[in-house]
Amino acid sequence: MRAVFLAAGEGKRLRPYFNRPKPLVPLLGLSLIERNILSLRECGIKEFVVITGCYADAIEEYLGNGDKLGVEIKYLHNERWALGNGVTAYTFHQEYRPGEKFILMMSDHIFGLDLLKNFIAAAQKIKEDEILIAADRRLEKVYDLDECTKIKAERDYALKLGKKLGDFNAVDCGLFIATGALLDALSQAISRGDYTLTDGVNILAGSGRAKLHFVNDFWVDVDDQAGYRHCEKMLLQSLVPAKDGFISHHLNRRFSLRITRYLARTGITPNQVTVISFLIAVAAAFCFALGKNICGGLLAQLSSIIDGVDGEIARLKFQKSNYGGFIDSILDRYADFLIVIGITYAWYTVKTNSPVVLMVAAAALTGMPMSMLFKEKYHALTGKPFLPEQYDGIFRYLPANRDGRLFVIMWGGIFNLLPAALVILAVAAHCQTFIRLYQARRMV
Amino acid sequence: MRAVFLAAGEGKRLRPYFNRPKPLVPLLGLSLIERNILSLRECGIKEFVVITGCYADAIEEYLGNGDKLGVEIKYLHNERWALGNGVTAYTFHQEYRPGEKFILMMSDHIFGLDLLKNFIAAAQKIKEDEILIAADRRLEKVYDLDECTKIKAERDYALKLGKKLGDFNAVDCGLFIATGALLDALSQAISRGDYTLTDGVNILAGSGRAKLHFVNDFWVDVDDQAGYRHCEKMLLQSLVPAKDGFISHHLNRRFSLRITRYLARTGITPNQVTVISFLIAVAAAFCFALGKNICGGLLAQLSSIIDGVDGEIARLKFQKSNYGGFIDSILDRYADFLIVIGITYAWYTVKTNSPVVLMVAAAALTGMPMSMLFKEKYHALTGKPFLPEQYDGIFRYLPANRDGRLFVIMWGGIFNLLPAALVILAVAAHCQTFIRLYQARRMV
Repeated sequence: MRAVFLAAGEGKRLRPYFNRPKPLVPLLGLSLIERNILSLRECGIKEFVVITGCYADAIEEYLGNGDKLGVEIKYLHNERWALGNGVTAYTFHQEYRPGEKFILMMSDHIFGLDLLKNFIAAAQKIKEDEILIAADRRLEKVYDLDECTKIKAERDYALKLGKKLGDFNAVDCGLFIATGALLDALSQAISRGDYTLTDGVNILAGSGRAKLHFVNDFWVDVDDQAGYRHCEKMLLQSLVPAKDGFISHHLNRRFSLRITRYLARTGITPNQVTVISFLIAVAAAFCFALGKNICGGLLAQLSSIIDGVDGEIARLKFQKSNYGGFIDSILDRYADFLIVIGITYAWYTVKTNSPVVLMVAAAALTGMPMSMLFKEKYHALTGKPFLPEQYDGIFRYLPANRDGRLFVIMWGGIFNLLPAALVILAVAAHCQTFIRLYQARRMV
Repeated sequence: MRAVFLAAGEGKRLRPYFNRPKPLVPLLGLSLIERNILSLRECGIKEFVVITGCYADAIEEYLGNGDKLGVEIKYLHNERWALGNGVTAYTFHQEYRPGEKFILMMSDHIFGLDLLKNFIAAAQKIKEDEILIAADRRLEKVYDLDECTKIKAERDYALKLGKKLGDFNAVDCGLFIATGALLDALSQAISRGDYTLTDGVNILAGSGRAKLHFVNDFWVDVDDQAGYRHCEKMLLQSLVPAKDGFISHHLNRRFSLRITRYLARTGITPNQVTVISFLIAVAAAFCFALGKNICGGLLAQLSSIIDGVDGEIARLKFQKSNYGGFIDSILDRYADFLIVIGITYAWYTVKTNSPVVLMVAAAALTGMPMSMLFKEKYHALTGKPFLPEQYDGIFRYLPANRDGRLFVIMWGGIFNLLPAALVILAVAAHCQTFIRLYQARRMV
């Protein structure tokens, strides 16, 4: 399936802040249209048609033929863009292949990845003379409802659309699966002097051919400064993965998302962040070995926070790689080991010389990798990631995942109670392993 | 698709050894027909029709309605079984559903699981008036060629079949995808006094409707004492998994398969074997701690060998479970940790008191889980198991997988060189991790 972007408008309201065409406005490290192209690429779409108007040259120069994004981009130009977006959309009739279904998308609306995936999967539900409209009936959640195109819906068909509609129960998200029927309707609307996309869609709605797909994920029309901020917020929130542990989910992400928001604008890669997080952990281990416990504790927790940033940047900028996942998890293990060894060194060599210390250290060293071992084995056996927050039940509060362990170590460092932290860590890790092994009976 | 078993014959040649109908002869813990049913169940077949003759009651009583095997079994009886297996096969016409394709199988032939899976997948290649015959053209590998039904093949069609055929280039494995065309042909053959299955198949071969599927995996006609032994050997060989390490593949399996051959006849479960292997490793750890190094070394290696038996029994008797996989890998890690701790205890506390020992122990404890971590992460990320023998290249000789580690520990125990063994183990484990991390760039 091909995707067609409407990128012809003037984008007046954002222009003063960015001094460039709206589709090219940078948001968390990618321009709006780049993010849409990469999102659709994740859904398997490889061929794009961008319909330009006002700033045709700037857009074409920026995106090129799509090679650098790993897709194919063609351009159509609409001289009469100022008339309305219906005329722009209709320009696609020059490229249309008979019988084809295509995605039609505003280049300045941003959509959650799940929304796009579900919507595209629904494309098969419509007939050849229908269109599918992504619609949102969660009106209380819709951002800037005033500016939206409203829909009067009955079941999953639109009866009428319009910006000024008084009686409505959904809004149009600016995302369609279209067919030749839409181009015909647009042609009809244009010939009678109605130039917006909504005019064309209304012709289909009037004859019961505008089907609705109700969305559940976020989408934002990046129309002004406030919409831009809202979009940034929604995108950042979408980066928190379901497999987070308790501390990570409720504490670390508050900080890591801010760091990601800042770093996204730079060229730093996820793997570079992984290495930085590792080096901070190594510094923490040295601090502990030298008796600088508060400093060590804070660095350990900082490393734990930064450990979330690599994945966030990778998801945000479509830079995910299996290899990055490998490096991250192997370096995390070494970081953990070094921290425990640093703590043990200070405790045993400098202070007590008691064999109990060695037993606690051995228990901690052997317990720590078990959490990841269990989760990866679960993933390998079942094909699904292990979600501690869901599957561990009441035991999700055990500080036995990495976020929990480093959190305990931070407090151990701050209050000069590292031996106690090590004991907690060892006990929690082995307890968690046995509890999970017991619970796995029901789960696999 | 349904599967039809021919289980009507007298099985004279095996009778003296087992005193029961041939389909019920036990082989590595399962009767022949049970193994065939469970193998097909692994391929997704759930409905079975067993055509009995000579020992109808014994077979029906043994298998019942299939509940205990998780399948559905119906029975047909052929009074005139003594005439020939064509008459038995034709009995299925009573149950035949028009248009249906069905698997037709000798109940006393045993097939490798891959052979069955590939053959069943090929069922779609034949037309409604054809049959598909599993044929073997690796004549040098065929067991007891004299007794086989030979095939004169041209490309992938049979021209003629027969036990006494002089000019042949393949043999019939006793496994078919049949259609109504076979039942018609059998009826025709029987009406002219030809009572074997081959007679019916020859009618189809004569009109170019007997298509061949050439097999690559093992199959055995369990016809006499020698065939029985051969089948046992082939089944045991098929249990060696591709993900074995070097020592496991080339040494441990020689012993573990013998143990499995013996234990398969008992009611011992894979999980019980897992626990036994773990307990032997714990005993090894205690021996090391008490300075009984030779005993500890031998027990460690024994535990490593038994560690292969659980999986072998599980695959052999169709008792594989994800939960078993979990228990096995978690207990293996604890076994490894305890062995290293036992060795360290004796070395440090009893002998040297040197901090170098603690460093070596820490390096060993932290290095050991990395091999499994890497492999499970690889499996989770790529969906495929990591195969050390294939992927590690020249580094597959590093004793860093579990089989290699315990092998080194055995020799360390025997020659009283456990400190050296621990150093080798620690160095090998961390080296392997870094080498794999480097190589993973190309692999994922």
